Amino acid sequence: MNAEKIPDIIIARLPVYLRALQRMADKGLQTTSSQDLGERVGISAAQIRKDISQFGEFGKQGTGYSIPYLINKLREILKVDRMWDVIIIGAGDMGHALARYQGFADRGFHVVMVFDNDKNKIGHKIGDFIIEDTSHLVEKVKSAGIKIALLTIPATVAQEITEKLVEAGVKAILNYAPISISVPKDVKVQHIDPATHLQRMTYYL
Amino acid sequence: MNAEKIPDIIIARLPVYLRALQRMADKGLQTTSSQDLGERVGISAAQIRKDISQFGEFGKQGTGYSIPYLINKLREILKVDRMWDVIIIGAGDMGHALARYQGFADRGFHVVMVFDNDKNKIGHKIGDFIIEDTSHLVEKVKSAGIKIALLTIPATVAQEITEKLVEAGVKAILNYAPISISVPKDVKVQHIDPATHLQRMTYYL
Repeated sequence: MNAEKIPDIIIARLPVYLRALQRMADKGLQTTSSQDLGERVGISAAQIRKDISQFGEFGKQGTGYSIPYLINKLREILKVDRMWDVIIIGAGDMGHALARYQGFADRGFHVVMVFDNDKNKIGHKIGDFIIEDTSHLVEKVKSAGIKIALLTIPATVAQEITEKLVEAGVKAILNYAPISISVPKDVKVQHIDPATHLQRMTYYL
Repeated sequence: MNAEKIPDIIIARLPVYLRALQRMADKGLQTTSSQDLGERVGISAAQIRKDISQFGEFGKQGTGYSIPYLINKLREILKVDRMWDVIIIGAGDMGHALARYQGFADRGFHVVMVFDNDKNKIGHKIGDFIIEDTSHLVEKVKSAGIKIALLTIPATVAQEITEKLVEAGVKAILNYAPISISVPKDVKVQHIDPATHLQRMTYYL
């Protein structure tokens, strides 16, 4: 199993499988098949078998997959068999929503700090956090060894903050700012921009 | 130009090009090249030329692309040369953030209604909207002819609400609920789930 050899498009599907499997486990289900899982996630059974087989032999012909076993394997592969501390930069509406989001904890993530550069926000509470000053971002993130950041700031400051995050040792950025950001090769970025996602669908309307 | 013939992966990149071009236009820039645009969005110049050429001959060898012309063409291709009414289902933190989001209007979208099933929320204001009762969802959406919905509701009710939206004639759903939803073939779905996006990156950490 060589991280470099698995195409990113496969990696992108694993969290979707994991999410569906976790829901099945919550309902008390014990086993599944690639057909069943496929129907739940809208991906073909053949694709699922092919994706999962990249990482080893996890199912049995005829009896299918053990849900708890496959969950454990996927969590291990995706490295969410541990908790990751994450920070939020930007205490606007989206930062608020993410700071209070209940869906991180059981999927491997724990928000530990929220930053903003607005003097009217610094020191105030957001969910369980005191909003901290972005001027202390690099030192705080570096000393806490944090690797993951959520960026919910205006496009105009996104690149500048990204560079601070990279300097602080952050290796994964979930970018809600409506702009592409440049990072070194060893830093991963995912973009969430509702207007971009919508425009991708209007094409078909 | 046949909508069926262009791979979805190309369609997915066009909104990213459009977003970058709009930022360049905001700065007063008039022309760009595939190299310049590529650096801004982190996609190779060759890929950009290939993607754009699917839709016609929009640039000139040596002089590059006219930014306003390419913006108009991309807006036309993505059908955001008009305004689309969209609704939000779910008046929680994420619904609030989206109802107040300033980034929709200049990219083709206009939030017109917000729904929730919580009696404590119905009738209250969220941004400029009065929260409406989801029990009126089908009739209201159908009579307004709305085609696009943002789903910010719990996973447990996502499929049930999706079926109401489909019944009401919605053809594009941006799903923030942490679950895959099933829709007929003529309905498009995009998923936004921060934990899934993060798990896609932790693999590489």
